[in-house]
Amino acid sequence: MKRFMLLIAAAIVSTLGSVTAQQNLWRSEGLVSPEIADTGCVTFRLYAPEAKRVEVAGDFLPQGVESAAMVRSEEGVWSYTTAPLASEMYYYSFRVDGMRDVTDPSNVYLVRDVSTQMNYFIVGGDRGDIYKAQAISHGTVARVWAEMGGSERRMVVYTPAGYEASKRRYPVLYLLHGMGGDEEAWLATGRLAEIMDNLIAEGKAEEMIVVMTNGCTKHASAPGYSAEGMWKPYMSGSMDGSFEAMFPDVVSWVDAHYRTVKRKASRAIAGLSMGGFHAMQISKEYPKMFDYVGLFSAAIFRGKEDIATYADLETKLARQFSEGVALYWIAIGSDDFLYKENVDYRALLDSHGYAYTYRESDGGHIWRNWRIYISEFAQMIFK
Amino acid sequence: MKRFMLLIAAAIVSTLGSVTAQQNLWRSEGLVSPEIADTGCVTFRLYAPEAKRVEVAGDFLPQGVESAAMVRSEEGVWSYTTAPLASEMYYYSFRVDGMRDVTDPSNVYLVRDVSTQMNYFIVGGDRGDIYKAQAISHGTVARVWAEMGGSERRMVVYTPAGYEASKRRYPVLYLLHGMGGDEEAWLATGRLAEIMDNLIAEGKAEEMIVVMTNGCTKHASAPGYSAEGMWKPYMSGSMDGSFEAMFPDVVSWVDAHYRTVKRKASRAIAGLSMGGFHAMQISKEYPKMFDYVGLFSAAIFRGKEDIATYADLETKLARQFSEGVALYWIAIGSDDFLYKENVDYRALLDSHGYAYTYRESDGGHIWRNWRIYISEFAQMIFK
Repeated sequence: MKRFMLLIAAAIVSTLGSVTAQQNLWRSEGLVSPEIADTGCVTFRLYAPEAKRVEVAGDFLPQGVESAAMVRSEEGVWSYTTAPLASEMYYYSFRVDGMRDVTDPSNVYLVRDVSTQMNYFIVGGDRGDIYKAQAISHGTVARVWAEMGGSERRMVVYTPAGYEASKRRYPVLYLLHGMGGDEEAWLATGRLAEIMDNLIAEGKAEEMIVVMTNGCTKHASAPGYSAEGMWKPYMSGSMDGSFEAMFPDVVSWVDAHYRTVKRKASRAIAGLSMGGFHAMQISKEYPKMFDYVGLFSAAIFRGKEDIATYADLETKLARQFSEGVALYWIAIGSDDFLYKENVDYRALLDSHGYAYTYRESDGGHIWRNWRIYISEFAQMIFK
Repeated sequence: MKRFMLLIAAAIVSTLGSVTAQQNLWRSEGLVSPEIADTGCVTFRLYAPEAKRVEVAGDFLPQGVESAAMVRSEEGVWSYTTAPLASEMYYYSFRVDGMRDVTDPSNVYLVRDVSTQMNYFIVGGDRGDIYKAQAISHGTVARVWAEMGGSERRMVVYTPAGYEASKRRYPVLYLLHGMGGDEEAWLATGRLAEIMDNLIAEGKAEEMIVVMTNGCTKHASAPGYSAEGMWKPYMSGSMDGSFEAMFPDVVSWVDAHYRTVKRKASRAIAGLSMGGFHAMQISKEYPKMFDYVGLFSAAIFRGKEDIATYADLETKLARQFSEGVALYWIAIGSDDFLYKENVDYRALLDSHGYAYTYRESDGGHIWRNWRIYISEFAQMIFK
């Protein structure tokens, strides 16, 4: 059988077309990159025999350091080994002479951030473990199309392990992305499915459905899935009231198609950056809809007053808080460019005596923080 | 609003970490690659100012041509324009001096083939249009975990547009991947969701559920989704009877969790290469289960006789064909390395007078053929 496997492997590789010809076999048995040692030191390797200068860039480097020089072996393999890294998920890419955003051909794991594909890896042992698939039951992740605002739009829906076999009803967290993101962002870079699977298996979070919408109303979906074609992603979002206006359709669709608990006490809404803005606006526009609100690095004060949705903020907040909110959670990093805006927003809430919970982390406007925030927020809701 | 968008974009890019710093903005406004002209000519572009030699490789090149030299502009952008290409989906990657498998930083669309990530693009106008998302309703694509053979394994399930809102029951196509593939392969490289959405919308295929399993029993899932961690994919498969043995569990799980028509006349099984072998074996092992069988470039005669599942082929085929098969469809390319094997298999079927339909295309053991075969097979079943 082994001989046949090699035979068929060689034949398939040689007939797949010139892109893969001859490469897969030696490469798959060849370089390992990244290699994560038990110490937390990570080694990157790239075969670039004729390059004059190769660097690795990524968020594993100390703040302020943009890239690290790699060292060439006699065989033309460039490598770099990090100091021990904290348990986390990290991105990286290579820079080869004048080229940037060179992906690692030895690492098939990629995430896209706006228009850039980057490799990633996870250092386990502590926080990173919650971002990894573990030996537990996993939930279902479905890409669905739902009618909202008069047209069909794509959403990602996480249902916890056991949902299909169960008859019970579940609470729902609506989780919103930031500018330049889409319905895939929380799943890919946010590790939502792994986080929820792990928190639920450990009994730290309630079993819940998580609905991830697309908050850029000019696009029906993430790039490539709609008739818009294979467009190149760019920084865009919706802050014109259109997304807030269609949100009741989202909730109605989810309530109609999933076994949900159709009441405020069983609904949460949270988002990052522009999604935090959306979560704030939507929760106040529909004060009977959500009992849990999470604002992660939220772009709070970005709504133009001449748009009805964004006008009369204080009047609407008064209505929302008089209706009652079980948890109003505000989280931001101390280096976030939206920090001051969140200070001001808390001052506004304080001036009226509205109750909220504040969480400050270090770091800035980065996915590391948003993964931490969702991991914490998910443990506080529906309890 | 526009000024704020730029402000927030700049701030986000500058704080996302060093990987993306400064790059996204100019790049997203900069190079377009690939650029597909109305003529079908495609231009690739890569910024590599210090490179001495840049080539593009891919299956868009004439057979036997492995790569094409790109030409450098004064600004350091290398480019290459193809002759008019037939309407199809194509892969490509760059070769920069001694480096291979360099992905295109201007193109976020990637597919993985075993352990290699490659960019892709689709030339529309004819056959390629069926591989593109169109302005129609789309089905749901769910990644589920189902118990089979005593453990939980991951599957991809396509349900047609309207499934959620409907009360009706649907026929099911079980669609199997080849060696080195997994439950993601038909969706990514096979464009299964786009093909089914389009065929159903045009009334050319019946509304059906499509279940894509993982046919490598030593892995619970595609790389990265199970406790096995972020392993590097390699050529592997299962031809030891284990996958065939667990298949009734797959069908039971699907019948229990989806609104299926639970009868032979509403079940089809098809696969490519090793998946064609599996489809042949499974359909004969369970002759009351499937009325439609599709063998695409099937690795027919690869079962060792000392494995019970693969012994007594003729006896089992006799039983299968006496039970009746509505469609037994064999497709292969004239250049396929498994061509002779399929000639021999048809001779065996002919010698017993078993009815089958034969489809021969040009080309070899390639995804272009498998996309064509599934597009044709899907139109013939459940009618």
